Amino acid sequence: MTGWVAIAGLGPGNDALVTPEVTNAVAQATDIIGYIPYVARIAPREGLTLHATDNRVELDRALHALELASQGARVVVVSSGDPGVFAMASAVFEAVEAHPEHTDCDIRVLPGITAMLAAAAAAGAPLGHDFCAINLSDNLKPWDVIEHRLRMAARGDFAMAFYNPRSKSRPHGFEKTLDVLREECEPERLITFARAVSKADQTLNTVTLAEATPEMADMQTVVILGNSATKRIGRYVYTPRSAS
Amino acid sequence: MTGWVAIAGLGPGNDALVTPEVTNAVAQATDIIGYIPYVARIAPREGLTLHATDNRVELDRALHALELASQGARVVVVSSGDPGVFAMASAVFEAVEAHPEHTDCDIRVLPGITAMLAAAAAAGAPLGHDFCAINLSDNLKPWDVIEHRLRMAARGDFAMAFYNPRSKSRPHGFEKTLDVLREECEPERLITFARAVSKADQTLNTVTLAEATPEMADMQTVVILGNSATKRIGRYVYTPRSAS
Repeated sequence: MTGWVAIAGLGPGNDALVTPEVTNAVAQATDIIGYIPYVARIAPREGLTLHATDNRVELDRALHALELASQGARVVVVSSGDPGVFAMASAVFEAVEAHPEHTDCDIRVLPGITAMLAAAAAAGAPLGHDFCAINLSDNLKPWDVIEHRLRMAARGDFAMAFYNPRSKSRPHGFEKTLDVLREECEPERLITFARAVSKADQTLNTVTLAEATPEMADMQTVVILGNSATKRIGRYVYTPRSAS
Repeated sequence: MTGWVAIAGLGPGNDALVTPEVTNAVAQATDIIGYIPYVARIAPREGLTLHATDNRVELDRALHALELASQGARVVVVSSGDPGVFAMASAVFEAVEAHPEHTDCDIRVLPGITAMLAAAAAAGAPLGHDFCAINLSDNLKPWDVIEHRLRMAARGDFAMAFYNPRSKSRPHGFEKTLDVLREECEPERLITFARAVSKADQTLNTVTLAEATPEMADMQTVVILGNSATKRIGRYVYTPRSAS
């Protein structure tokens, strides 16, 4: 039997946002690998082994998937959101690069609804024009790179979506982000804090950049900054399709 | 009976990428509105009226949806990909702004798998680090804005996904895009042309920026430019999670 690895996006939390492609892959799997809360979303069944691991062991998890597949297992690596956006897909390819004996492994990436697009949909259409996605975690890149990207994105008048804005280990990162954005953008710029998107306890909070505080974000929050044309209409926030 | 408008993303083409949320909304709809090829993806049934219109009439289509909903209809406006990414969601909110009598309409945006994320998944993980999404159509913005954004995104070392790279009415736009990118990026930079993503006739073509030609793209193509660290590993293209 030939093994494979499918790196699958479970979407932001609501099962109605899981694609049939992902559901089918899970149904065919012998093994599920992933971070504890994502593996917890998979229903146990006979013949399916669940391997739940803690966060920050992405490369170990990826290598484990490749090794199981080389022994004939059908492995689904579960990510939240989309696996290609600040999630497990790059980690698996990093593991392949470090362990070239797995280069011929049958690896598929199954896209999912990434948090920023679910958040944008809940708010209206704040990403309806050109935009950037930026991971604010400085675990894997220095703050200088983040700051430079924020400035370039602001000067290009991109809307921006921020992943991982804040954690206990980085209490000041998002404060610095807001400081940079306030230097580059006008105080009336709209910013939306979307927490627990698509889940029962989802909250949305849109304020101006002048009103924004670091406490409005945590690690369950995706933050969307509009571009200079983003506006409110009724209870919605949207960015027009045109630019001048 | 209370009407509503759901702006739904059908994903890039393969029905296995349509979320259950969208499938459920279509099942409850009385009316489907959209561009001809997207409406053609909806199975006809009794009690469901299909309103297929040509391209470039987004605002008329949006207003039609709002008017039907105000008369009690349950309207699904279908987009390809994700409705919030260069698709119908912003057009509907623009129509609400122009016709404020519809401000209280029950409007929901239902996210979908947008083309760049399906293309990235098919190629590996080229958007695995910070990235930008840029619409290269100059129907709704001047070329100067596009050029400035390309330069800012390149100087921020973002990966980039390009929508609508080329059309019959704009045969030279993508050539100019490649010229700007060659001024800003090294010739070895990887660029992936993904055509008809997720469909039976999907093609993927990854070359260096030096090798890229305008003819590699058409309006069915999404183009993904890597960042300075994007690499090939076996048949995959991926961007590492870290930056220095």
